[in-house]
Amino acid sequence: MSQPDCVACRGAWPAPRLRIADCGLTVAYLHEDQFFEGWTVLVLKRHATELFHLTEEERRRLIEEVSAVGEVLSKQYRANKMNYELLGNQLPHIHWHVIPRRPNDPAPLEPVWRVAHQPVTLTEPQASEVAGRLRDLIRLQAGGRFFTGS
Amino acid sequence: MSQPDCVACRGAWPAPRLRIADCGLTVAYLHEDQFFEGWTVLVLKRHATELFHLTEEERRRLIEEVSAVGEVLSKQYRANKMNYELLGNQLPHIHWHVIPRRPNDPAPLEPVWRVAHQPVTLTEPQASEVAGRLRDLIRLQAGGRFFTGS
Repeated sequence: MSQPDCVACRGAWPAPRLRIADCGLTVAYLHEDQFFEGWTVLVLKRHATELFHLTEEERRRLIEEVSAVGEVLSKQYRANKMNYELLGNQLPHIHWHVIPRRPNDPAPLEPVWRVAHQPVTLTEPQASEVAGRLRDLIRLQAGGRFFTGS
Repeated sequence: MSQPDCVACRGAWPAPRLRIADCGLTVAYLHEDQFFEGWTVLVLKRHATELFHLTEEERRRLIEEVSAVGEVLSKQYRANKMNYELLGNQLPHIHWHVIPRRPNDPAPLEPVWRVAHQPVTLTEPQASEVAGRLRDLIRLQAGGRFFTGS
């Protein structure tokens, strides 16, 4: 269920300091670039690269985790729209980008990938504070559905 | 369940000539730009704008349709990787981009939105032929799971 040459399986990506919460099938992390505030990545715990390689039960749980985290982020960041993307072009291990598009978005009609910007890297205390706040919200708002507490 | 000012609800988008198949909760269409061959859009039949506005049962069925169509496209276009994107920045009505990234992809590491290119518009007979072929494959490979035949 794990692949030695995969950086996600090895725990080398995302950086542990960006960890938000264990959501059940996935672990949520802050995206390393926080230009789009609240950008979160849900990384599948086991190694798989396509939706259709999962079992139906895994897909059901996965979309519940994506949706629940999306709802928390939408409220917390007062998003006009959430973006949900499962790409894997650079790293095929299933990871879902969940991105709040806020009222101050510089290009609200465009996918984030088209928005030229300087990456925003949080300091260690900033990342810890934001991740901690999101962990509490996920526990509070979606906890009964999947949160494992870690 | 339908909204008069929404072009998807009004049936004004996508163009009827790009229709592939009724998949149950969604209708599959060819994306109007076929530069990335096989790019398909799954449009939710009812009006909703976020995953978390759906019922759990709708999410379960939706991800099954996305996954099944993704599997058909992956095989048919011999994709190295499938991309799955639910954005809605320009049209919030839920529609899922399902995009095969083929071995001849000019920028396999990039999201499609970053790949500058001339749009490829199929003629009416071309679109009908491609959509018909995909309809048959969806019926054959995923039919038992959701295909309604229309």
